[in-house]
Amino acid sequence: MLNLNEIAAHGLRRVRSRRPLVHNITNWVVTNVTANALLSLGASPVMAHAHEEAADMARLAQALVLNIGTLTPYTVEAMRLAGLAANSAGVPVVLDPVGYGATELRTSATRELLSAVKCTVIRGNAAEVAGLGGLPADIQGVDARGAAPGAAAAVEVARQFGLTAAVTGATDYVSDGERTVKVDNGHRWLTLVTGSGCMASALVGAFAAVEPDPVLAAAAALTCFGVAAELAAEGAGGPGSFAVRLIDRLHDLDGETVAARARIDWVS
Amino acid sequence: MLNLNEIAAHGLRRVRSRRPLVHNITNWVVTNVTANALLSLGASPVMAHAHEEAADMARLAQALVLNIGTLTPYTVEAMRLAGLAANSAGVPVVLDPVGYGATELRTSATRELLSAVKCTVIRGNAAEVAGLGGLPADIQGVDARGAAPGAAAAVEVARQFGLTAAVTGATDYVSDGERTVKVDNGHRWLTLVTGSGCMASALVGAFAAVEPDPVLAAAAALTCFGVAAELAAEGAGGPGSFAVRLIDRLHDLDGETVAARARIDWVS
Amino acid sequence: MLNLNEIAAHGLRRVRSRRPLVHNITNWVVTNVTANALLSLGASPVMAHAHEEAADMARLAQALVLNIGTLTPYTVEAMRLAGLAANSAGVPVVLDPVGYGATELRTSATRELLSAVKCTVIRGNAAEVAGLGGLPADIQGVDARGAAPGAAAAVEVARQFGLTAAVTGATDYVSDGERTVKVDNGHRWLTLVTGSGCMASALVGAFAAVEPDPVLAAAAALTCFGVAAELAAEGAGGPGSFAVRLIDRLHDLDGETVAARARIDWVS
Repeated sequence: MLNLNEIAAHGLRRVRSRRPLVHNITNWVVTNVTANALLSLGASPVMAHAHEEAADMARLAQALVLNIGTLTPYTVEAMRLAGLAANSAGVPVVLDPVGYGATELRTSATRELLSAVKCTVIRGNAAEVAGLGGLPADIQGVDARGAAPGAAAAVEVARQFGLTAAVTGATDYVSDGERTVKVDNGHRWLTLVTGSGCMASALVGAFAAVEPDPVLAAAAALTCFGVAAELAAEGAGGPGSFAVRLIDRLHDLDGETVAARARIDWVS
Repeated sequence: MLNLNEIAAHGLRRVRSRRPLVHNITNWVVTNVTANALLSLGASPVMAHAHEEAADMARLAQALVLNIGTLTPYTVEAMRLAGLAANSAGVPVVLDPVGYGATELRTSATRELLSAVKCTVIRGNAAEVAGLGGLPADIQGVDARGAAPGAAAAVEVARQFGLTAAVTGATDYVSDGERTVKVDNGHRWLTLVTGSGCMASALVGAFAAVEPDPVLAAAAALTCFGVAAELAAEGAGGPGSFAVRLIDRLHDLDGETVAARARIDWVS
Repeated sequence: MLNLNEIAAHGLRRVRSRRPLVHNITNWVVTNVTANALLSLGASPVMAHAHEEAADMARLAQALVLNIGTLTPYTVEAMRLAGLAANSAGVPVVLDPVGYGATELRTSATRELLSAVKCTVIRGNAAEVAGLGGLPADIQGVDARGAAPGAAAAVEVARQFGLTAAVTGATDYVSDGERTVKVDNGHRWLTLVTGSGCMASALVGAFAAVEPDPVLAAAAALTCFGVAAELAAEGAGGPGSFAVRLIDRLHDLDGETVAARARIDWVS
């Protein structure tokens, strides 16, 4: 088995040295924090959703991150165009199915994107990923009972859709259907910061740009994000200052700290 | 007469325990701060404006907040669809007529929404609400001279449109045309933070979700927001750190502090 | 020659006393930070992009700032309508060609806007402005070698398009093709904050509203922004807290500090 702590640290160093261009088509709420998280990590964010340039930008990028929060038919079509271009160019694609299951539009848009675009990683919370996998929706409430449901959702969706699924929560699970990793880094205040999940998805994109194994890329990204969150919580006065410090800590995070603090392990 | 300080404190506790889902169709500028203010307060924000899901999301929510800043005909139609669904489902609707009177589009969109959708509360500054009520536009400049103009605008609009009107400023006034409450909490730096009015409207939505009397809901929300602002200003180095601390203080605000610091009273 | 330090200080004082309304049609990523930067500086920001009100709002404003990040054909048309109205009303127009050259859409939109609308100032980084001037794209990499390339790009674009060009980087250059000013204020963390360039463009708009000479307006704006950034970096823990403190420092910046710290000089 590989040493996952060192893989996470190595991923961070590679993002820092290669500064991958990460193209985001994301929701109105999180554009600013997503771009700042990527910049602090050491990646280069770009946002572009016009149909006339979505594919061009995706081809220029080293990763494409699609996020359906505040979706419209226009932005979903932009995601499809960018996704197809990324597929042709061999650019990894991360999909964040924000609010999957809440409305018919979100369900159909996610399914449409998954059938049109080959996604490398899908990143969501337990309810979103379980819903996508046809598992009981109340998996959300089960999360406190133990590790199994989040892991089960990741494995199920990974197998059904032939990709890597990352389920974030108190414990994160990343699976390609065969191998599953869990990450215990993070902080409860992440749930009080709008866009923390979207930032996590964007960071998965940055790591997927420099690490060809999507399970390792996603696990490394979530570990670095979780360690930064733990450090950010030290001395923070609430979710507002925590969010500011999260950007600060993503900036000064180094491989040594990640390797020392990572709580990451193989589940299977 | 009811003890308004205790009502404000009680409203906060109810938002915290019920965690109402607040559906926002709001402007590009304030999406992130609005969502973070709601999360820190203890509510659950969601943003959705596609015509295909606006009504579905409004029916899932416990409050709907419509904000016409950066409006387009598309988003106004989304607000109309969501508003009608909220009306059918008995979900309270808060309208924020950002920039009412500045352009023909803002004037006509506000009037169109008010005629199509039954709004529970309208929240604006003195110029916006006075303009809507057909009162002199220079009421804005009069605010420093005394309490009367803000109160008059609230009463007038409440009566004309059959709803509760909340006028925010150095002193806030909330009226349903019969009863009027004033709130003296707040801090002048709120005027230097983009979206402070929009956050106030969103918080009114969260309180309207748990308090059936719209005058009490709006007054309680503005009191809690004002107290959080006063606490946030302590030790802040300017409007930037004030805005961050505002989110922190909304998070750790408790009913006891609200009851002790509230400066809220019946005007009539 | 005029004393540029005093001109920068004087510009700030005039923005503070006149509080110009600055109409921004800008990208999704930076709306909030742009509005907060303008508010802290002492200007009044407004955002409006609906075709039905873009021209009305531009006519009400004292400056119009157009920014093509996250452009769509719809927003570009809004910029054209607002720009023409601003031209008719004598309102100065600032154009920020974000990502010029990255995609065909950005290139054609920038050129279309420049041919339809008389722009007062164009503000971009060296690669964007050089690209627009038909100079080698690798001018970007040359910035570290010396002052000349940024200055050359500014002069070239100013002459070709008959406007004032501001090129920001480690050193900023502002030129109308005849006179060129350089500004050495700033901080490297500006490159790690999303929208720092967009904020600079918006501030140029605020100064252009109160200073009729566009070279002096742009140079004064960039000086004030750079001084605020230097002060913000003191004690900041990373790019996140730096961005917050930047808003704080724009708020408490005064003319005396600007005059004392400005590193601004005529190049030609």
